[in-house]
Amino acid sequence: MSRRGTTARPHGPEDRRESDPGTLPDRRGIFRASLGLGAGALAAAMAPKMARADEQAPPADDPWSQTLGPGVVDRVYGKPSHFEKDVIRRDVPWLTATPESAISFTPLQHQTGIITPSGLFFERYHGGRAMVDPAQHRLMIHGLVDNPRLFTMEDIRRFPSVSRIHFIECPANGGMEWRAAQLNSVQFTHGMIGCAEWTGVKLSTLLEEVGLKTSGKWVLAEGADAAHMTRSLPIEKCLDDCIIVYGQNGEALRPEQGYPLRLLVPGWQGNMSVKWLRRLQIGDQPWFTREETSKYTELMPDGKARGFSWPLYAKSVITFPCPEMPVRGPGMYEIRGFAWSGLGAIKQVDVSLDGGVNWSRARLEAPVLPKAMTRFTMDWRWGGKPALLQSRAVDETGFVQPTIAELRAVRGTNPVYNNNSIQTWQLKQDGTLYDVQLA
Amino acid sequence: MSRRGTTARPHGPEDRRESDPGTLPDRRGIFRASLGLGAGALAAAMAPKMARADEQAPPADDPWSQTLGPGVVDRVYGKPSHFEKDVIRRDVPWLTATPESAISFTPLQHQTGIITPSGLFFERYHGGRAMVDPAQHRLMIHGLVDNPRLFTMEDIRRFPSVSRIHFIECPANGGMEWRAAQLNSVQFTHGMIGCAEWTGVKLSTLLEEVGLKTSGKWVLAEGADAAHMTRSLPIEKCLDDCIIVYGQNGEALRPEQGYPLRLLVPGWQGNMSVKWLRRLQIGDQPWFTREETSKYTELMPDGKARGFSWPLYAKSVITFPCPEMPVRGPGMYEIRGFAWSGLGAIKQVDVSLDGGVNWSRARLEAPVLPKAMTRFTMDWRWGGKPALLQSRAVDETGFVQPTIAELRAVRGTNPVYNNNSIQTWQLKQDGTLYDVQLA
Repeated sequence: MSRRGTTARPHGPEDRRESDPGTLPDRRGIFRASLGLGAGALAAAMAPKMARADEQAPPADDPWSQTLGPGVVDRVYGKPSHFEKDVIRRDVPWLTATPESAISFTPLQHQTGIITPSGLFFERYHGGRAMVDPAQHRLMIHGLVDNPRLFTMEDIRRFPSVSRIHFIECPANGGMEWRAAQLNSVQFTHGMIGCAEWTGVKLSTLLEEVGLKTSGKWVLAEGADAAHMTRSLPIEKCLDDCIIVYGQNGEALRPEQGYPLRLLVPGWQGNMSVKWLRRLQIGDQPWFTREETSKYTELMPDGKARGFSWPLYAKSVITFPCPEMPVRGPGMYEIRGFAWSGLGAIKQVDVSLDGGVNWSRARLEAPVLPKAMTRFTMDWRWGGKPALLQSRAVDETGFVQPTIAELRAVRGTNPVYNNNSIQTWQLKQDGTLYDVQLA
Repeated sequence: MSRRGTTARPHGPEDRRESDPGTLPDRRGIFRASLGLGAGALAAAMAPKMARADEQAPPADDPWSQTLGPGVVDRVYGKPSHFEKDVIRRDVPWLTATPESAISFTPLQHQTGIITPSGLFFERYHGGRAMVDPAQHRLMIHGLVDNPRLFTMEDIRRFPSVSRIHFIECPANGGMEWRAAQLNSVQFTHGMIGCAEWTGVKLSTLLEEVGLKTSGKWVLAEGADAAHMTRSLPIEKCLDDCIIVYGQNGEALRPEQGYPLRLLVPGWQGNMSVKWLRRLQIGDQPWFTREETSKYTELMPDGKARGFSWPLYAKSVITFPCPEMPVRGPGMYEIRGFAWSGLGAIKQVDVSLDGGVNWSRARLEAPVLPKAMTRFTMDWRWGGKPALLQSRAVDETGFVQPTIAELRAVRGTNPVYNNNSIQTWQLKQDGTLYDVQLA
């Protein structure tokens, strides 16, 4: 291990040699022993709840089975159980100067499928959340087009629509880890991502409608927020799979996600999916806006800036176990996590229990969709010894998720953006986990 | 037209002859004229918003672009925009005697994709919403098994998990239409359905764990609600695709959906997906519980009851336009809707503009998943004349969605359940739509 910066860390490099990180067993019958619920244990566990001694009789009613519960919550928008009140987005207070230009992170440790609940989808604002009135909102498309237009929301909803499941990830996701911040939290190391079913109009449909000129090679997308978030996009991507989105997970786009209208640029840096979208200008060269020059570029070791690094490359992370979700004693578990790639579909995820020495293939949960989060799982019997857990994604282009050492060898330690490196969770004997980096 | 009952209806049978219901045009350039936004219209529309006369300059800032918006809503569970406050579940007050045994309906007219937002997913209670403490909750599996068990939620989360996108539909969905209630609302004719990404443990995994005996042919599923909702399931279905679910759309199951644990019986009557699941008993014959004898059966014309009619057959409905979503004048639109089948994937959806005389193939939006809602769309130019809009689903087994007349010929008018008939929306010249039934 090296380059860990100056922060304290709980274990040394000998972990990798010492570890007996567990095995990937045949499933049959081993959960039984593992859960410790044989017939005797069953009787003991049931004793306080059972009305009769017969172990085959149903348990006695709990209090909530004995009286009528509340009726339908008609005309109220439903919300999670109060028992889930700690499953929320969270911020890192020291990370940004003001809440109007800040980030809150998705609690990936609680995410059960590829859909990120809209109420937990990470937020990133550059000038606060624009409180747009949809009846007043307009989208202008102008520049190198035959018929410049100003569209109302009603106009936009009349066009042929598409629905797609895609992730959106901030390129700063994992940014604190370039310098080995060791946040001990999957929410903070990887939570600037969410995945949703988006519905809207293909940008190519609208460009056809306004009559894109052949001289039009770039599109400037501008948001209606106070920061007027602005990015340049090459016309090839605009005509490929970009969507002007008004629907998210079956309902209207959420305010945090750009209500009533945003651009979606599948698989590319999240900030390019401009929120509260008000204007698309077609030109013949990029604009070199603030957000693609002073921001969202990477200072390389030779002093030059790497800009326009649009796609987000293959990445993955284990969400169980993780620092927020420790292991409760030896036995059978399922390792779980997510993988994604901005270049296409995930082809393969491997899991290591020994810091990358040995790898085993994980299961991928269907549907495996291009530029979408993909859930992976693997059976795991933990023997109770320290381990170094890693996952490694491979996408359909053959891109293999790199180590942080491999990334640093090329890009140094200045960058904030585009850290898609393999995450290591150090599992200690007591079942707790820590965010560490290996050489 | 016939068998419309005694309620008033807005139009007579001559509609079908008179109608010039529109065409399915080539797309290019026609939205342009349709939206009425040529260069002149553009200048006029932009005038009140533009700072400069140059029609190529960006519009002036709206108020929300001129000041910083609210910062990140850290540590708060996000919710929809207040502009969407009318997008809520609604009930039909006269339908049930008490709110504890009632239904609220999904607002399908607003659903933008195949995922039903958890806050809008229909509710059906038989004894109110059981307020279960997940730390105290247990699932008992007993009966014809080698090792009867009592599982905690923590036990269940340790097992290998799966995620699947499936619909759940109450078999009473459309029940009011058997007798031609003509509700003039897609929310009330079709809103007892929702579709979500569910995560949990395959029931077959747990049955393997407890050691299912070969004599075990039926499973009784019992809820922890005050009604102790109870249904019998054949073992073949249990071993096929049933799931013990704890996750819904990326987070914990919602209270209305059985938090912390429910059974999911994909494609079968919704009430079989027992919520707040507390007990699975394995036996050698069905139990003939209240909910499969006096309820959820159909009184046939010969006086016999049709019971155990488990799968929900192919069905579809147009959600735009519909009574809640009228057409605003002649021009180009997109007809949109949803189709689903309890037998597998949707293979084809056809749309008719003339009450079933002529049919055109709709587009299906990917992913098209088995036993999941599937979105369909079709371009449509409305000329402004009356029309009779219908959609007809065909699933991968070849099952074709029937007309209400075909259903009534077999089942009479007594049933409440399993109405999967073709819905007709009558479009009037003023753009309003009505729920009608054709002979």
